[in-house]
Amino acid sequence: MITVKARATSGPGEPFRPATIERRDLGPHDVLIDIVYSGICHSDIHKAQNTATVFPLIPGHEIAGVVSAVGPEVTKFGVGDRAGVGCMVDSCRECDNCRAGLEQFCRKGFTPTYNAIQADGSPTQGGYSEKIVVDEDFAVRIPESIPLPNAAPLLCAGITLYSPLKAWGAGPGKRVAILGFGGLGHVGVQLSKALGAHTTVLDLSLDKREDGLRLGADEYRATTDPETLKELADSFDLIVSTVPANFDLDAYVGLLGVGGVLVNIGAADKPLAVSTYALRRNRRSVAGSLIGGIPETQEMMDFCGEHGVGAVVEVVRADQIDEAYDRVRAGDVRFRFVIDVSTMNDN
Amino acid sequence: MITVKARATSGPGEPFRPATIERRDLGPHDVLIDIVYSGICHSDIHKAQNTATVFPLIPGHEIAGVVSAVGPEVTKFGVGDRAGVGCMVDSCRECDNCRAGLEQFCRKGFTPTYNAIQADGSPTQGGYSEKIVVDEDFAVRIPESIPLPNAAPLLCAGITLYSPLKAWGAGPGKRVAILGFGGLGHVGVQLSKALGAHTTVLDLSLDKREDGLRLGADEYRATTDPETLKELADSFDLIVSTVPANFDLDAYVGLLGVGGVLVNIGAADKPLAVSTYALRRNRRSVAGSLIGGIPETQEMMDFCGEHGVGAVVEVVRADQIDEAYDRVRAGDVRFRFVIDVSTMNDN
Repeated sequence: MITVKARATSGPGEPFRPATIERRDLGPHDVLIDIVYSGICHSDIHKAQNTATVFPLIPGHEIAGVVSAVGPEVTKFGVGDRAGVGCMVDSCRECDNCRAGLEQFCRKGFTPTYNAIQADGSPTQGGYSEKIVVDEDFAVRIPESIPLPNAAPLLCAGITLYSPLKAWGAGPGKRVAILGFGGLGHVGVQLSKALGAHTTVLDLSLDKREDGLRLGADEYRATTDPETLKELADSFDLIVSTVPANFDLDAYVGLLGVGGVLVNIGAADKPLAVSTYALRRNRRSVAGSLIGGIPETQEMMDFCGEHGVGAVVEVVRADQIDEAYDRVRAGDVRFRFVIDVSTMNDN
Repeated sequence: MITVKARATSGPGEPFRPATIERRDLGPHDVLIDIVYSGICHSDIHKAQNTATVFPLIPGHEIAGVVSAVGPEVTKFGVGDRAGVGCMVDSCRECDNCRAGLEQFCRKGFTPTYNAIQADGSPTQGGYSEKIVVDEDFAVRIPESIPLPNAAPLLCAGITLYSPLKAWGAGPGKRVAILGFGGLGHVGVQLSKALGAHTTVLDLSLDKREDGLRLGADEYRATTDPETLKELADSFDLIVSTVPANFDLDAYVGLLGVGGVLVNIGAADKPLAVSTYALRRNRRSVAGSLIGGIPETQEMMDFCGEHGVGAVVEVVRADQIDEAYDRVRAGDVRFRFVIDVSTMNDN
């Protein structure tokens, strides 16, 4: 077993403290990744607050690092390669969805990167740690052109936006809106623009307008301005909502033109309510999407490398995780926190 | 003006009684259609019960007949041609949607066949009448191979099913479910099968199973059997729901495979509630659809003519409309009532 330093929380509301965990010895197809940066995702915070979580918890599924060892049958990675791990570390690999590269829809359920039990019975532990061992099939290559801190959040935030943008045809001649301009939305704007779509940000205020335009938005509109929803009625082909709560879905469905789709990727605890009349008009749809499969995650990463897309991050030390969580909850981050894992050596 | 016999109701709960109405003299592009059969649609009943409706009301937007006169500039129809009129008798004809043949999504709103005000200020009156005058652009040809009683309901029920089946790709290799086997559903099954899709009926009971199989269903399952929803989980590419009320949407969303779409064409007064988690899994969508444009309505009618598709109807006399309404409300019709308009001469 490989003993590594980590940061763990022992229960809802408990601070993150230094911990040591064991990673399995490398199997034939495993790679050992020295983690350099680990992103802080909203869902980390949800899990850390959830009494149903198994504690101690070591979150983190936006992992960027460098391969430091490989099992004897590994073919895709060599020592020194830059590699990332996202939300999944395994799946059944046999069902039709897994075979189609849609591991996120594995009929037996994929194995999440943390707070899950693996096939061998051991718990998974996430990226707030120095190293991770993972089957090479669940690691992706990170292009040299993306600095590792900016690459880490792409493993979750990036693929979460890329997959629906691709599935619903964002590209030249299409009008796309990104609803909510935060950790997910700021990546979505870059991806939508790089895919060639006319891209509008819809956020509560214009506070982050300059950032939005700098990252490629063609328009940036405040949803609290009553004129916005009137002027943009019936105008979008695709709206990707990153709003992490329940919201007035009908108001945004009304912005869709003929055949338009609103994809909700934000988590809402209560069911969404949508009027049948709003959907009928313009033959509209409301859809969901969940990260993306491993092949598409690699495609996304390569696309980001080619188009200069990366998360805008604030780097924090390992002893600042609690503070970062508070700031994420307060919406005070531009746009994603990543933990500098080397700082785990400081204490 | 052209005086014609009709059947009108003077208010919610009031019986249908003989009436006479005026149809406009033929304009250059108008055709006069002698109505032979007029279908009874659920929405006729909704309108007749609605206190917001303008009374007296002459419903009917499933109109099949024969052209008896044409305006001087009419090019598409001649006297003696079989012709139908559906839910629309006009639209702005100038907006992008009208130009694209999507008059149902006219940006200024289309003019419904009854209970609306036309551009000239006169009210529209529907098909429970002997004749109708309509611009040739809003009439469709009815192939000789479809008997007129079976053709009438296609003008609403037919296009309401055909449009979403086409829009979401029903065809060979696709698994389609039709939810609800009534006036809409029984046409949907025929269309889905004729388009080449594997077609399953989902209805509350197996009471109409023989009809379903005879009309082309590959499978016919009862949704009240708890095994049905388990066995069919994650299996459909497209579900078209004809359920005319609120229902447990999540239960049916769970039947969709990767990229699957549930199109709701039934009217529900309350918003639909759908779980974000149900939508995320398999990248599912919930959509709406509203009849279809005039070009697509003609395409549907021609398709039905080629493939032997038609509504299964019970023909009623003009003095049986109230009785037919009661039976529709009780679900006691296989599968659509059409009024034999010649019986308006009987009293």
